[in-house]
Amino acid sequence: MTPFADRLAEAVRRAGNPLCVGLDPRWESLPGELRDRFGAETLDAVAAAIDAFCHRVLDLVSGRVGVVKPQSAFFEACGPAGLAALQSVVRRAKDLGFLVILDSKRGDIASTAVAYAHAAFGGTAVSNRRFQVWGVDAITVNPYLGRDAIVPFITAARQEGAGLFVLVRTSNPGAGLFQDLNCAGKKLYRHVAAAVADWNAGGFGTCGLGDVGAVVGATHPEELAELRAELPGVWFLVPGYGAQGATANDVAGAVRTDGLGAIVSSSRGITFPFHPDEPGWEAAITAATDRAVAELKTLVKR
Amino acid sequence: MTPFADRLAEAVRRAGNPLCVGLDPRWESLPGELRDRFGAETLDAVAAAIDAFCHRVLDLVSGRVGVVKPQSAFFEACGPAGLAALQSVVRRAKDLGFLVILDSKRGDIASTAVAYAHAAFGGTAVSNRRFQVWGVDAITVNPYLGRDAIVPFITAARQEGAGLFVLVRTSNPGAGLFQDLNCAGKKLYRHVAAAVADWNAGGFGTCGLGDVGAVVGATHPEELAELRAELPGVWFLVPGYGAQGATANDVAGAVRTDGLGAIVSSSRGITFPFHPDEPGWEAAITAATDRAVAELKTLVKR
Repeated sequence: MTPFADRLAEAVRRAGNPLCVGLDPRWESLPGELRDRFGAETLDAVAAAIDAFCHRVLDLVSGRVGVVKPQSAFFEACGPAGLAALQSVVRRAKDLGFLVILDSKRGDIASTAVAYAHAAFGGTAVSNRRFQVWGVDAITVNPYLGRDAIVPFITAARQEGAGLFVLVRTSNPGAGLFQDLNCAGKKLYRHVAAAVADWNAGGFGTCGLGDVGAVVGATHPEELAELRAELPGVWFLVPGYGAQGATANDVAGAVRTDGLGAIVSSSRGITFPFHPDEPGWEAAITAATDRAVAELKTLVKR
Repeated sequence: MTPFADRLAEAVRRAGNPLCVGLDPRWESLPGELRDRFGAETLDAVAAAIDAFCHRVLDLVSGRVGVVKPQSAFFEACGPAGLAALQSVVRRAKDLGFLVILDSKRGDIASTAVAYAHAAFGGTAVSNRRFQVWGVDAITVNPYLGRDAIVPFITAARQEGAGLFVLVRTSNPGAGLFQDLNCAGKKLYRHVAAAVADWNAGGFGTCGLGDVGAVVGATHPEELAELRAELPGVWFLVPGYGAQGATANDVAGAVRTDGLGAIVSSSRGITFPFHPDEPGWEAAITAATDRAVAELKTLVKR
């Protein structure tokens, strides 16, 4: 079984760029054409519309981007039908060869964490059988509950060649309220970063990176570079590029000299670069992908 | 609209005890009778079994307990059918008059947090209509991402007379890894507690408590009492009682002199006090509820 870190390295190398397309499907942002076709009479209809939209986005970016990241909140917002759409979108993404990161920021402990982890990776265990639920390659997790909230995900991920990304330093304006508290000589997020380095040590691939990554926002370029130096073997998932304001220069510090080590995520900037009531949304997505790929490919050596 | 804090006070007073029954339905723990009836050929069958089990538990504890807390992980583990079961269990609990806390420990920001919060409370907004998703009275949330991860939940909750419980000091063995770090003179969880007090200040009911509660584990009785003194107007959700080892004495410090202020949660101890292959599981649940009610009612003045 190929380790997660090497599968991610291969996805970046094959695409020639570190772009990760975030799938955050909101009804209000969908193309008018799709909204008219599906209608909004029921939540099932809305779920069908976001399913169709995400499938089309996958087709449009396929072959040029290696990684996609569905945000589970927007599927959950449509209830059980929305979560069936999430399953369908993940399956389609896997069929097209994408590496899939489920952005659900799970954080719970013991058997509860095991339930989430099995749902994400190897499938729910029932009477010695496994039933696939999400079947993704990686998931985002929250560290506040400590080791018990992380280790069950690591165990389940390693059985499947999957990985996880632990929230370390996020890109939102209020992130510093707790993450920047000075704790025993260094900021809280640096303590979390050190724990990530420990957890990551058990899952290295041949590329010199491991399977426990860190979420580090692009909106703090200096911290990104510091963390890169401190955690040379940790994959970073870097949100904040594009619509949130960060540029390729801002994220450059996250990339190692071998061109690996960072996945740069953009959601709205790639998937909603159009006004819902204007035609040409597919061309707009293709053009936005082209621009991001051109900007970000300079970060990756071939 | 009755504020959340007063609705919770009324639920405790009506039941005469602060017990919250946690619904953590695992296939392996279900009564053999139910497993035989539904089978485990598909995840939909497993979802139907946990749905039937939770409905029966609700009937058994109805009238003696005021609050229930479904754990979303175990419903998610059964995929979309499991989440349809969650909806059905919440609806039944509301019909029976329970106050329902969804234990999903959500933690995300901005429009993503809004999507989670609308799903929890007022319903997903689509073209100026609202579609109910979970429709619960409260949800657990994770503070690591800071203010942006909490305020959207507060806003949505206040529109519906709902509330939230922020993870402050959890009951798991590894909780201290970050929560106990000494930050600028006090432990991290005390900083989170102070933020909860601030957020809570905007949502007081007539009972002298507010709508932004704190999750504080019963496995740290001295910290529980300290936090009670520090946060007199904050509702505590206290896990760790029963199967996790804490007694009524251990949680007594969480209760105010007026008998309000704490909800004491027990999951396995109430819902799985039997061996799956033995008969009499319903009587065992009734007896376990009786014992917990008898023990905990001493904490609440009538």
